[in-house]
Amino acid sequence: MKRNNDRKEYNVAIAGATGAVGIKMIDVLEKRDFPVKNLKLLASASSIGKKIAYRGKEIFVEKLTKDSFKEVDIALFSAGASVSREFIPSAVSSGCIAIDNSSAYRNDENVPLVIPEINPEDVRLHKGIISNPNCTTAIMLTVLNSVYRYSRIRKIVVASYQSVSGAGQKGISELEEQIESISSGNEIKISKFPHQIAYNVIPHIDVFTENGYTKEEMKMLYETRKILHDEKISVSATCVRVPVKSVHSMAVTFITEKNITVKKVLELLSDSEGVTLMNDPSKNAYPMPVTTEGKYNCFAGRIRKDIAFKNAVSMWISGDQLLKGAALNAVQIAELLVKNKILKRDHG
Amino acid sequence: MKRNNDRKEYNVAIAGATGAVGIKMIDVLEKRDFPVKNLKLLASASSIGKKIAYRGKEIFVEKLTKDSFKEVDIALFSAGASVSREFIPSAVSSGCIAIDNSSAYRNDENVPLVIPEINPEDVRLHKGIISNPNCTTAIMLTVLNSVYRYSRIRKIVVASYQSVSGAGQKGISELEEQIESISSGNEIKISKFPHQIAYNVIPHIDVFTENGYTKEEMKMLYETRKILHDEKISVSATCVRVPVKSVHSMAVTFITEKNITVKKVLELLSDSEGVTLMNDPSKNAYPMPVTTEGKYNCFAGRIRKDIAFKNAVSMWISGDQLLKGAALNAVQIAELLVKNKILKRDHG
Repeated sequence: MKRNNDRKEYNVAIAGATGAVGIKMIDVLEKRDFPVKNLKLLASASSIGKKIAYRGKEIFVEKLTKDSFKEVDIALFSAGASVSREFIPSAVSSGCIAIDNSSAYRNDENVPLVIPEINPEDVRLHKGIISNPNCTTAIMLTVLNSVYRYSRIRKIVVASYQSVSGAGQKGISELEEQIESISSGNEIKISKFPHQIAYNVIPHIDVFTENGYTKEEMKMLYETRKILHDEKISVSATCVRVPVKSVHSMAVTFITEKNITVKKVLELLSDSEGVTLMNDPSKNAYPMPVTTEGKYNCFAGRIRKDIAFKNAVSMWISGDQLLKGAALNAVQIAELLVKNKILKRDHG
Repeated sequence: MKRNNDRKEYNVAIAGATGAVGIKMIDVLEKRDFPVKNLKLLASASSIGKKIAYRGKEIFVEKLTKDSFKEVDIALFSAGASVSREFIPSAVSSGCIAIDNSSAYRNDENVPLVIPEINPEDVRLHKGIISNPNCTTAIMLTVLNSVYRYSRIRKIVVASYQSVSGAGQKGISELEEQIESISSGNEIKISKFPHQIAYNVIPHIDVFTENGYTKEEMKMLYETRKILHDEKISVSATCVRVPVKSVHSMAVTFITEKNITVKKVLELLSDSEGVTLMNDPSKNAYPMPVTTEGKYNCFAGRIRKDIAFKNAVSMWISGDQLLKGAALNAVQIAELLVKNKILKRDHG
């Protein structure tokens, strides 16, 4: 790739660099040619000394400490909410901007929650932290954005089919080990998920809240409202873990304020940033995990006038939750910071 | 089990006896001690000579022909719609009542479509044929029945998680073979499903119709209306195949005419025939394929006031589609025929 030698470059740190999302962040930074000056890979003690390739060099993983962020411009966090809460304040004090993939700060009114295709202007409101949305919300809203701009969406009913890598590398190992145990007649081990996931589906992701919805399901409501700046939109979700390795899918029914035809939806989606339309039933073409894995775009198909509600459309969406649902969206936020000259290096 | 020696017994034939549902029909007839005089097992030429155990005896599988039904009182059909269309007229001419698990006659206005817990009285309207509903519809309505009786349901949004045995034994083999091929690095074979099903989900069951819904999805609308005798109820379904061996699950949101509390729904479901409530999030207890497999009852859980609609409740349902979704419901219909003395043997 041709590089602009005069371009400004930035020191980037990744906290949680050895996790499923961290690995993708490194890959996305390289593939999108993000202007990295120095890349610092941070993880917990158990990963120290591991080497990870970036631009043809091997980078050693260092221990994440409160002193890790000196000279760092952008810190991408993906090591869980408790790690974010412990270390992000130090990162911010060091003068860098933290882009947090955990749920730690998503509902904090001082922290913008950003999908670059939808609310890029919100990065300007940051006070040191910008949150990356929950994977399922990011994928769903990336697809629905253009429809929402055409005619406000009032209600969404969504049922998700979420892959095991949403729970990290250990989620994938657990599925594979359980399948292996079942085929060899051994007892299965359960640790990452509340029940057996091999040959099963589990309608339970994150913890239950008082109203009977899980936190994962409530995130889809709260984050949708925050990203769209629309307190009137309602989202009723059922979030379900399925024995798929990566890519989250969902069945979505949405009701719009004014009537919208399927033709209009197709027209809008075929011209939406970050969205690929895959909508040809006659050729058995619709989004699926096996065809969506590794793709930056979110896929939409099975688009049809809903038969139960007026002004409603039903569709099927798949998106790689490690990419648009996590690593890609975080790097896109970092790109916005560069583009808008928001980083301290742009001013000092 | 104690048998009543004076009881009337009936000649029963099963067409499609070697299929996934046929095998379950034999098992259910035995387990529920159905008054069988003679059991005839019928299948296509390729299965002739196979032996299947019933009440400690081995029964040879015979070839299904138009002459198979002389002296037969009840014929249970589960060999696909085209076999039903070819052979059921001969069965009816022979004077027996056909209970058809295929979709062949479900929309025929002369053929009742029956879930014994819901519309048992409809068996009396038969003209030789009674249809068994589609698996997903049977499971969903068995659970929703008592709620519907309390307050008419106006709209249902449902997303299904359907197991591969809904496509028969070959569906299970295909999933197992694909998983084996993937783990040994061989190329996978696709024949029963339109795409790879291992580690994937496929939003496509049965063929597509003009409105963008599949036939499987439209069955959930048409069959719900027919069983409930309610042309005003709407059902919008997304039917999805998941890599689970047996049991269909579904995320259901329904809107009722009058307001209904979660407490009332729990009260109704805990007292519903054919339904087991499994609704204790604090103990991670909710319906799932692994715990529902082999059970006659349908399971309901995750019951919560819906947050997007007024007068709405969301829940999660699992049911063994080979049992309540097929074999069990068919045998329950046969039991109704006996109980109501509808069979010719009761009058001749």
